[in-house]
Amino acid sequence: MSAAIPSKLVNRRDLAFILYELLESEQLTAVRKYADHSRDTFEAALDAAQRLAEAEFAPINRLLDQHEPEFVDGKVRQPEAVRRALAAYRDAGFFAAGQDDVYGGMGLPHVIAQAVQAMFNAANISLTAYPFLTIGNANLIRTFGTDEQRRTWLPALYGGRYFGTMCLSEPQAGSSLADVNTTARPCEDGTYRVFGQKMWISGGDHELAENIVHLVLARLAGAPAGTKGLSLFIVPKFLVKADGTLGARNDVALAGLNHKMGYRGTTNCVLSFGESDGAVGYLVSEPHKGLACMFQMMNEARIGVGLGAAMLAYTGYLHSLEYARSRPQGRPPASKDPSCPQIPIILHADVRRMLLAQKAYAEGALALCLYAASLIDQRETASTRDEQRKYGALLELLTPVVKSWPAQWGLVANDLAIQVHGGYGYTRDYPLEQFYRDNRLNAIHEGTHGIQALDLLGRKTVHDRLEGFEELAAHLARTVRAAHHNGDARLARWARELQSALDRLRHVATLVSRKAIGGAVEEALSNATPYLEAFGHVIVAWLWLRQALLVHAHLDHANADERAFYLGKWQAAAYVFDFELPKVEGWLFPVARQSTTTLDMRSEWF
Amino acid sequence: MSAAIPSKLVNRRDLAFILYELLESEQLTAVRKYADHSRDTFEAALDAAQRLAEAEFAPINRLLDQHEPEFVDGKVRQPEAVRRALAAYRDAGFFAAGQDDVYGGMGLPHVIAQAVQAMFNAANISLTAYPFLTIGNANLIRTFGTDEQRRTWLPALYGGRYFGTMCLSEPQAGSSLADVNTTARPCEDGTYRVFGQKMWISGGDHELAENIVHLVLARLAGAPAGTKGLSLFIVPKFLVKADGTLGARNDVALAGLNHKMGYRGTTNCVLSFGESDGAVGYLVSEPHKGLACMFQMMNEARIGVGLGAAMLAYTGYLHSLEYARSRPQGRPPASKDPSCPQIPIILHADVRRMLLAQKAYAEGALALCLYAASLIDQRETASTRDEQRKYGALLELLTPVVKSWPAQWGLVANDLAIQVHGGYGYTRDYPLEQFYRDNRLNAIHEGTHGIQALDLLGRKTVHDRLEGFEELAAHLARTVRAAHHNGDARLARWARELQSALDRLRHVATLVSRKAIGGAVEEALSNATPYLEAFGHVIVAWLWLRQALLVHAHLDHANADERAFYLGKWQAAAYVFDFELPKVEGWLFPVARQSTTTLDMRSEWF
Repeated sequence: MSAAIPSKLVNRRDLAFILYELLESEQLTAVRKYADHSRDTFEAALDAAQRLAEAEFAPINRLLDQHEPEFVDGKVRQPEAVRRALAAYRDAGFFAAGQDDVYGGMGLPHVIAQAVQAMFNAANISLTAYPFLTIGNANLIRTFGTDEQRRTWLPALYGGRYFGTMCLSEPQAGSSLADVNTTARPCEDGTYRVFGQKMWISGGDHELAENIVHLVLARLAGAPAGTKGLSLFIVPKFLVKADGTLGARNDVALAGLNHKMGYRGTTNCVLSFGESDGAVGYLVSEPHKGLACMFQMMNEARIGVGLGAAMLAYTGYLHSLEYARSRPQGRPPASKDPSCPQIPIILHADVRRMLLAQKAYAEGALALCLYAASLIDQRETASTRDEQRKYGALLELLTPVVKSWPAQWGLVANDLAIQVHGGYGYTRDYPLEQFYRDNRLNAIHEGTHGIQALDLLGRKTVHDRLEGFEELAAHLARTVRAAHHNGDARLARWARELQSALDRLRHVATLVSRKAIGGAVEEALSNATPYLEAFGHVIVAWLWLRQALLVHAHLDHANADERAFYLGKWQAAAYVFDFELPKVEGWLFPVARQSTTTLDMRSEWF
Repeated sequence: MSAAIPSKLVNRRDLAFILYELLESEQLTAVRKYADHSRDTFEAALDAAQRLAEAEFAPINRLLDQHEPEFVDGKVRQPEAVRRALAAYRDAGFFAAGQDDVYGGMGLPHVIAQAVQAMFNAANISLTAYPFLTIGNANLIRTFGTDEQRRTWLPALYGGRYFGTMCLSEPQAGSSLADVNTTARPCEDGTYRVFGQKMWISGGDHELAENIVHLVLARLAGAPAGTKGLSLFIVPKFLVKADGTLGARNDVALAGLNHKMGYRGTTNCVLSFGESDGAVGYLVSEPHKGLACMFQMMNEARIGVGLGAAMLAYTGYLHSLEYARSRPQGRPPASKDPSCPQIPIILHADVRRMLLAQKAYAEGALALCLYAASLIDQRETASTRDEQRKYGALLELLTPVVKSWPAQWGLVANDLAIQVHGGYGYTRDYPLEQFYRDNRLNAIHEGTHGIQALDLLGRKTVHDRLEGFEELAAHLARTVRAAHHNGDARLARWARELQSALDRLRHVATLVSRKAIGGAVEEALSNATPYLEAFGHVIVAWLWLRQALLVHAHLDHANADERAFYLGKWQAAAYVFDFELPKVEGWLFPVARQSTTTLDMRSEWF
């Protein structure tokens, strides 16, 4: 049975709790699209993923860190083990885990496909980036591509023979996509020629796949300035002939590799398009509609970044839990008798605090990411337009939180995992320091923390006139009512505390909206980041309250093992309400006060 | 003039502000011991330190990271540049910066000697560890050694010919010194033979000095168990003959090097004492009094760790400030016209938030560390026993905060410095990621964060019956009164907020004390860490309020440059009161609620 496989990737009991108790994912099998599935087939996919992640991905995690990609004779050189592990992933069919039969897929709902991906994230985040980008790339072509484009690219991408990338940034345009100046020129045969330099391209070049399919934002002649003038092009590394075999090398060249602090198994490239006569590209969708298409992949990537951060936190937590149970050091504060043997450090309250914090962050972040994935399923399977719109609004609202909360608190979790290990955690003999270095990327790529904050407060709150916010508030209100009605004093107190935090958020969001609508946009948005942080904590506290409600419902009928699991969940919820939710007020303080401190500061005063 | 030397190590105007305006260090020159000194001689020492740090230390910071020490044929191999830089430091006389003429020293007061050290910390933290440990080692021998020991070791240590270490930890005894089981056996000639293995010894072996002087905690036969049975021994790498020349190799062997995430220029060693017939050692002070002696070096080291963390934050801040002023990206939220050129990122409010946060942490941490150093001077030059005792109590109370606050928030500062740089900050082309990795050690060595928290709440608060606390409160009250009496509404508001936070701290400290005295020690101390965090923020907010008072007093008479500097200080104080002090209540929440969540959690529930 899956639950019996011991793992330092994820606690399978917890994963099952999130999937089937919290998110009720089994109900998806009632939908026609997933009628062939059952909890058993979901678990079989997860078992297979776990086995492969543990056998092929986790064992080479340190190797990839020690032997980062090198640029030799114009090509990328990486350890042979990278190719082997990805071949095993491909052969097991995971590139098409979320696709139906057309692409030889497993036909898994989004939430389960994400749980599958989570295993690989935990085992080896920088290796998993290749399939992660490939799947997102293929999904975009599936949505926006022509029939011919789908026929040409999708079987190879979902089959894992070609890998994909997203090419947005340029040296002068990282966060500011309005400044992209790669150009594209139409040719008589309906193709385009692309010219320009792209920067920070993950998986931008390598020798791991037969071909690489770049999705490139570029500007047609006469296009409007800014993001409204961006078009999207498929630009392969090798041209593909009519019979599907590979043709000539396209005019795309690797210009350099970035040397990173972590995440080293993923090549990160500077790419030159069109150094000779132009890179052949194929327009996706219509001219100047590129960014709207790209947003599908970006949003998917943002949830994926959150999930990666959550799983780095999760595996770090499980490593430090094992260490804390086995490492003897010190004695209880009340009985320091040195003739008694030392106790395992988990018996120190402060070590349990560090473990509870990690549990709260890791399991909370995983629940958040899978909740977002379940919203995609809900939206896809909604029976009415109105429902579809509501799930969409909720997903849009939560996307910046799903991207940023796990990145921020997953890193804190990894910091605590190091701390639990003491000096050992700071050495490269243990994997914690790598998790920490790897995780540090997640607040930067796919839109920095600050960009997510502006998205949440500017676009998803002020601009959308709190529509998503009120939808979310309605969900929270249901949980609060349930917690009040079941008679447990602690649940009732937590419900009050959650409600009060939500009311404060709404108050602040309303203040900010009023200011922005009154024209003071810059001032209104100047404290977006602390708002994001407060908002994220409220959402995750809500997910923990929902988990505590489930514990309350099931504890009495649980056997001993189950009781221990449920009591741990309860205690983590208690930790969240004692130690984490109270931080919200501190973050909201400058937003509520409408502090102009950062706004008023001048460059020359620093 | 010194202020004109541009530097990314420290803002010399700020350093002068802290030293002469905030801490009034010039007054020390009125004391006989420092009568030969003046602000000019202080500044001359700082200039010399800055020049050397910039010329010899900073340029090899990355080199030491890339070429960590190797263990080759039983010896440590390091880049030749390490030896050269330390020779320059030695030749400039900095090992004896804080010593008087007897050791050829500069006779600087403690606070200035620490400021000198700060330059080197900022330039190359892992290189500075060698003199840092050597000076602490020598200071201990100066205090507790016999005349003969002083004659034998001090000229060589303060002259930088011998380097020093502190050997406390063992594989089974990191945080728990009670479990040290290295043994020492007396010989007829009055020397001892030491046997055992020591772990995590910074500077434990290398080829950088003529000799290495280890200070080793060990246990004599029949000694009491626990920390009360520890004695302290001088154990040199090479024995020293009566004429002062080096004799035979002592029985101390390098057993291995640890490979760390950062701080790589400092060798970190496993050392074996007495693998053959015992390492020759010389007892310091009396049998079983070792830990009390060691605490002098440990307390000094703790302040030193705080200063190192502060300076890593400081240099990271200055690097990210320069980047933010020069990197164009994006446009203001209110005018997104893509035909306008991009603006330097410092013009984005959220980037200024990240810079203000770094300024608040870095300058606040430096002020905190130098304040602690000034307390050592005050204690040494106090005219009455009572004064001496008061400064001592304050220093003791603050030591865990000085160790932990810069370590925690300095790391956050470095995290923000990376974030300001975006993707570039995550690459090894920029120094930020190294600062971040280096700084991560500081919450671990010289007593982990959790150990500092227990020290603050257990020993320095409960056990000392709030004596130091009330002394501190009296100092804060003076600042609060001054802020109320000068008629500025903002200062008055900040004073109220500070007073209110202090009252909450006292309330919580009293609750905890009552519980501990009632016997529930474990429960009372179980939330020590959030208490430490709240406490640290209150102290630093106090130091910022004092700085804001100075700004208020001097702003009107300042020229343009000075005005800019003072306005920056004011704005950083505003940041602290808007964004940082409000966090205190969230940390105190579980302590005030007397949450038993971490205490009640069980190992098997995780």
